[in-house]
Amino acid sequence: MLKRRQTIQVAVGKGIKQKCIGSDHPILVQAMTTTQTSDVWETMNQIMPLENAGCEMIRVAVQTPEDARAIREITRHLTIPLVADIHFNPQLALLAIEYGADKIRWNPGNITKTEMIKDIAQAAKDVKIPMRIGVNGGSLRKDLLDNPEFRTSSGGYKTAGMMVRECLDAVALIEDIVGGKGIVPLVLSVKASDPLAMLTANFDIARQTDYPIHLGVTEAGSDEDGIIVSCAGLMPLLAYGIGDTIRVSIKDPLKQIRAAYRILRSYGLREYGVRIISCPTCGRMGNFPLTELEQRLNEEFSKRLDLRGTIALMGCPVNGIGESNQHSYGLIGSHTGAADIYYNGNKEKRIEPPDIIDKIVVDALEFLEGKS
Amino acid sequence: MLKRRQTIQVAVGKGIKQKCIGSDHPILVQAMTTTQTSDVWETMNQIMPLENAGCEMIRVAVQTPEDARAIREITRHLTIPLVADIHFNPQLALLAIEYGADKIRWNPGNITKTEMIKDIAQAAKDVKIPMRIGVNGGSLRKDLLDNPEFRTSSGGYKTAGMMVRECLDAVALIEDIVGGKGIVPLVLSVKASDPLAMLTANFDIARQTDYPIHLGVTEAGSDEDGIIVSCAGLMPLLAYGIGDTIRVSIKDPLKQIRAAYRILRSYGLREYGVRIISCPTCGRMGNFPLTELEQRLNEEFSKRLDLRGTIALMGCPVNGIGESNQHSYGLIGSHTGAADIYYNGNKEKRIEPPDIIDKIVVDALEFLEGKS
Repeated sequence: MLKRRQTIQVAVGKGIKQKCIGSDHPILVQAMTTTQTSDVWETMNQIMPLENAGCEMIRVAVQTPEDARAIREITRHLTIPLVADIHFNPQLALLAIEYGADKIRWNPGNITKTEMIKDIAQAAKDVKIPMRIGVNGGSLRKDLLDNPEFRTSSGGYKTAGMMVRECLDAVALIEDIVGGKGIVPLVLSVKASDPLAMLTANFDIARQTDYPIHLGVTEAGSDEDGIIVSCAGLMPLLAYGIGDTIRVSIKDPLKQIRAAYRILRSYGLREYGVRIISCPTCGRMGNFPLTELEQRLNEEFSKRLDLRGTIALMGCPVNGIGESNQHSYGLIGSHTGAADIYYNGNKEKRIEPPDIIDKIVVDALEFLEGKS
Repeated sequence: MLKRRQTIQVAVGKGIKQKCIGSDHPILVQAMTTTQTSDVWETMNQIMPLENAGCEMIRVAVQTPEDARAIREITRHLTIPLVADIHFNPQLALLAIEYGADKIRWNPGNITKTEMIKDIAQAAKDVKIPMRIGVNGGSLRKDLLDNPEFRTSSGGYKTAGMMVRECLDAVALIEDIVGGKGIVPLVLSVKASDPLAMLTANFDIARQTDYPIHLGVTEAGSDEDGIIVSCAGLMPLLAYGIGDTIRVSIKDPLKQIRAAYRILRSYGLREYGVRIISCPTCGRMGNFPLTELEQRLNEEFSKRLDLRGTIALMGCPVNGIGESNQHSYGLIGSHTGAADIYYNGNKEKRIEPPDIIDKIVVDALEFLEGKS
């Protein structure tokens, strides 16, 4: 479990903004903007809070020459690398490279002519930037869709198989164009809206190559279902050490970052603020205001992503004592409405009403800040 | 992937409320109440909406003789089986069985005396009801916590190893007491708040027994993080065919049911209303009100869990055409604010503003109801 798949290392960006993708490095968290890239002001207004929230690489859509030209101004203000997302027009890839994109994402289902791909790969080689081969189950190569090999007996598509084929074909083509492996460093992604197709394809790609892999479930939907579907695709791969960068494709880019870190934190792959372990409450709990306390602490900790640790909020002693022994800060509610507080597994004090929520918040923050 | 682990089948409850747990049956969704079980009115008020939402088995805390006695009245009104959760007092297990509990959950970390366990197992055998052996990382047997075999070199605990040992010891003890395997049908669970410990332990239990397994990450926390941590524990197991019943241990029991079904739906393991596939929007999208439409459809579909299908809401044609071909109902927004509508992969019509959200909601509902 969690033993990282060994990959080639890929550097993105130059100087202080350089980030590395691959098995020697922490799994990188990225997001994509929703603005018109040509609107530099709006785009920067969206990216800056993302950088503060822990976004380590940002992707922007390049649909027009104005979008490509905006990259020069945007990258000037960024502390993280920028990826230009190209869909149909290879000229925009060349322009994005000219204007300083740190990486190009090419969808081999949309730009399929070898001559066009040659131009892009050669330009990336000339300025020494990496490319992402970004396969998407919603925009596959037409010849694969037409190929009976990839149809099921009931007339459906074998999406995973098509995605793997398209990705490996694209790898071979780029290596052939630039004259070998690693001359243009590659990151691979195969995304689908069906998490099962996505994870099957990624297990296959992981076995067949040693390029780093970017993980994501595409068009995941919104909020709860978007997060669940993303987890369905990502978790089994991460648990088996596959994945070097991730994006959670839900609506709000800030939520993408938060969900990505929480996914990685759940396996201890990245640190991210304070994790709250909290019982769902049941008939065993007395008068302790556990739900209200948890909401308050969630708010406080979301402003203090610099803090580290786990805090266990338990409504009764049944599992409370065991949990409190395992975490930095433990709390067990009592029937009277008071709470027993544990520091690093040792019972430290009892906090009594009134104003018990305020008192606990202050105590927990002081403890986690190292002041207690 | 998804090939179900073969298990013994366990029936819970009698007559029309009987449910079966095991590899011959769909993965069962359960929840636990948060009320004082002795308060029959409050407890029923919580369970009835859960049954309507798809809860297939309900667990209640039994802490007092009054809680145990309330089971008779509660089960009279239920259409699903009831599990009595026993923690420290074996007398309450006997009383819960006497008052008609359909299944007993025994935590072998809390009731450890063989004589007491004998009484419970014998009572279960007499009335022919199954037991769940419910191990929890927060309430493990003291002798395991004291055993140097389960300490790491840095002084921490090997939670997964302790949970597996406690569970298998408990299985052996029950089989010994009742005189063999299957005489009291067992369901096993090993839950921890650390999803990695939980999933490691479950992979191990799955290899070593053929009893059905109930999956859950305990004390998952609230909402987003609770769902992510639950997914971290559940998804890799479900993807490998392990798990016969699940509970998502987040705060609100109704949310537990919804999240559980969405988790199972993401792999196609259970059906649950209409799934919305939706792009996260990016700089490629024009004036189409995709986010607002998705919110509206989410609301409508949450009231219509009887409907089936997938609906793809895409902001632009890049992946939109491919997605629309794969789902029951597809929509691609245009720069002008209109939308192209696909029925079963075929372009059906274009819907234009004004009132485009209302028009699409009506069209989608009619299509999914089979009226179009």
